[in-house]
Amino acid sequence: PNCIGVIDNYSGVDTTFIETGLPEDEITKGGISFISQSGAIASSILMIGDSYPVAMGFNKFVSIGNMADVDFIDLLEYLEEDESTTVIGMYLEGYPEGRKLIDTMGRIAKKKPIVVLKVGRSEEGATAASSHTGSMAGSDMVYRSAFKQNGIVAVDTLEELMDTLKAFDGLPLPKDGNIFVLTQAGGPGIYCTDAIGQHQALNMPVIEDETKAELKEILPDMAAICEPEGYADITAAATVDHHVKSLECVLDDPNVSSVVLITIVPTFLPRKELGEGLAELYTNSQYRDKKPVYNVIMAGNYVETARIALEEAGIYTFDTPDRAVNAASNLVYYSEFISSVEEGGKSHDR
Amino acid sequence: PNCIGVIDNYSGVDTTFIETGLPEDEITKGGISFISQSGAIASSILMIGDSYPVAMGFNKFVSIGNMADVDFIDLLEYLEEDESTTVIGMYLEGYPEGRKLIDTMGRIAKKKPIVVLKVGRSEEGATAASSHTGSMAGSDMVYRSAFKQNGIVAVDTLEELMDTLKAFDGLPLPKDGNIFVLTQAGGPGIYCTDAIGQHQALNMPVIEDETKAELKEILPDMAAICEPEGYADITAAATVDHHVKSLECVLDDPNVSSVVLITIVPTFLPRKELGEGLAELYTNSQYRDKKPVYNVIMAGNYVETARIALEEAGIYTFDTPDRAVNAASNLVYYSEFISSVEEGGKSHDR
Repeated sequence: PNCIGVIDNYSGVDTTFIETGLPEDEITKGGISFISQSGAIASSILMIGDSYPVAMGFNKFVSIGNMADVDFIDLLEYLEEDESTTVIGMYLEGYPEGRKLIDTMGRIAKKKPIVVLKVGRSEEGATAASSHTGSMAGSDMVYRSAFKQNGIVAVDTLEELMDTLKAFDGLPLPKDGNIFVLTQAGGPGIYCTDAIGQHQALNMPVIEDETKAELKEILPDMAAICEPEGYADITAAATVDHHVKSLECVLDDPNVSSVVLITIVPTFLPRKELGEGLAELYTNSQYRDKKPVYNVIMAGNYVETARIALEEAGIYTFDTPDRAVNAASNLVYYSEFISSVEEGGKSHDR
Repeated sequence: PNCIGVIDNYSGVDTTFIETGLPEDEITKGGISFISQSGAIASSILMIGDSYPVAMGFNKFVSIGNMADVDFIDLLEYLEEDESTTVIGMYLEGYPEGRKLIDTMGRIAKKKPIVVLKVGRSEEGATAASSHTGSMAGSDMVYRSAFKQNGIVAVDTLEELMDTLKAFDGLPLPKDGNIFVLTQAGGPGIYCTDAIGQHQALNMPVIEDETKAELKEILPDMAAICEPEGYADITAAATVDHHVKSLECVLDDPNVSSVVLITIVPTFLPRKELGEGLAELYTNSQYRDKKPVYNVIMAGNYVETARIALEEAGIYTFDTPDRAVNAASNLVYYSEFISSVEEGGKSHDR
């Protein structure tokens, strides 16, 4: 494989020949560090991330090729100790000492999340990996179960990889899988609800009667509140204020641990104000760092102003409801792993 | 639900309040017509499609709300007879007479493909659909199996919906599920191979020895040819000419029915020339309309010039290998359905 080199946005080193490098002062460094066994996957991630409404920042980014000098374990151990790295992403084809790799990843996962895109899963994919990096891809089932046991987040697609890294970097961990769908439109809300139904880790909670009454008070008459439970359609008539107030109300409910907020901005809803109104809520100390909110502002280039207003305030946005839900499910999985580790630690102390 | 109205790009009517309408002469009309039971999904599709490197064109686009006047069946029957519509897309929550809807869709599917995003699949999703359009979502399993029996292409995500519509509109149907992966980079090629492994309809074929020898002749020495079978890594050293000649060679092989072409454009590969070189090959009468090629040119905004050169020549491009593969699998499914219908017709004639 080729190898594109190293980027360290924290110290300002860039040895790559990829043209995505932004002027240094425009880079949002963030806490995401990434190790790739493929130069092309590395480049793709940089190019896709740079094409988001606000470019996705990386803290350290390493393309390691076929590991002649340094290898995965060295780099993982470096990132384990690196305080500015909050989450580690990996593109992995294979590693000669699989057990050692999993042990290292598992140890680190107790301190910070690792999100891995492991390829060479099918027989043909494994052959391709072997001819590419000379890697033994290993049994997919063995890797999957080792990841699962060790709190390592395994993803299926490039999109899920990037969305999950953003979510870990920018959002607090949820207490549990209770996720509320607050949607400004029926269709995308139902689509989101179906997506939640695909994830065992997630469920839509029954909220307090007082919260329901308060939502009824706040929202337009035609709003559909808690049909089904854990769901409110605030309707296309919702103003910026309706968005912000209903979200605040839902976040205050003790049964809600995460929220997906979906809005398909109609021509008559001011985009920049929407982004700014939500950003103000999230940066309010009462809500900041308490519960993750997945903002899905649809769609395409038409809503860039709203997304930029949020992202520039450090609040991530997602392309579609299902992409947000995939990331949300991964955060719940990791949060539950960390809780079980802490529980284990406590009982051991006794 | 709200309803955003009707767009007929064929005759130039647009009753919607969505701002995506392009100047009439810039609209690529194409053969895709769409019926949506949700105004917000309709708007999202228009906004996402308009944000592609070249805006996705629609022939007729109808947002039907809760069907007070006209309903799905009326519209489907209209599109059935409409010669400029080559493929029908649907966003469906539910319909009071499910059997009648499936019968109509099944009859039409024998003439032109129908691609449907059916929501309300989970219990909660069905409740949300009922409070939205008053639709009975019906059993997901019943719908899925009815779609499958009737040659109706059911998709899971908005992305798959749009990619599949583009593929049906712009590409010939493949003879069978034999799909070749021609990749300029190892990582994305392996990722693509894994994605193919997820689809029962697809498999990577063994090509002729002469084709292998010819590829070896054409390509840089370091190219990995047919490890695994049905796969060639033309490497990052591949020029525009290497791309075009190796693709031509693979398309000439009788064992190849579709090709995924993946290229992660490095700084030293000229983008516009790549797009133009490929476009010239595809419009050559020897290849045009013969076998579908799924062009994945990565990534993000950095490769727009290559994608625009292709799309302006009427050749669709896809965002990522897995998205291309999802569309490819849907074309194979439909192609096999049509073959079985034709077989049935023949044996009936005897």
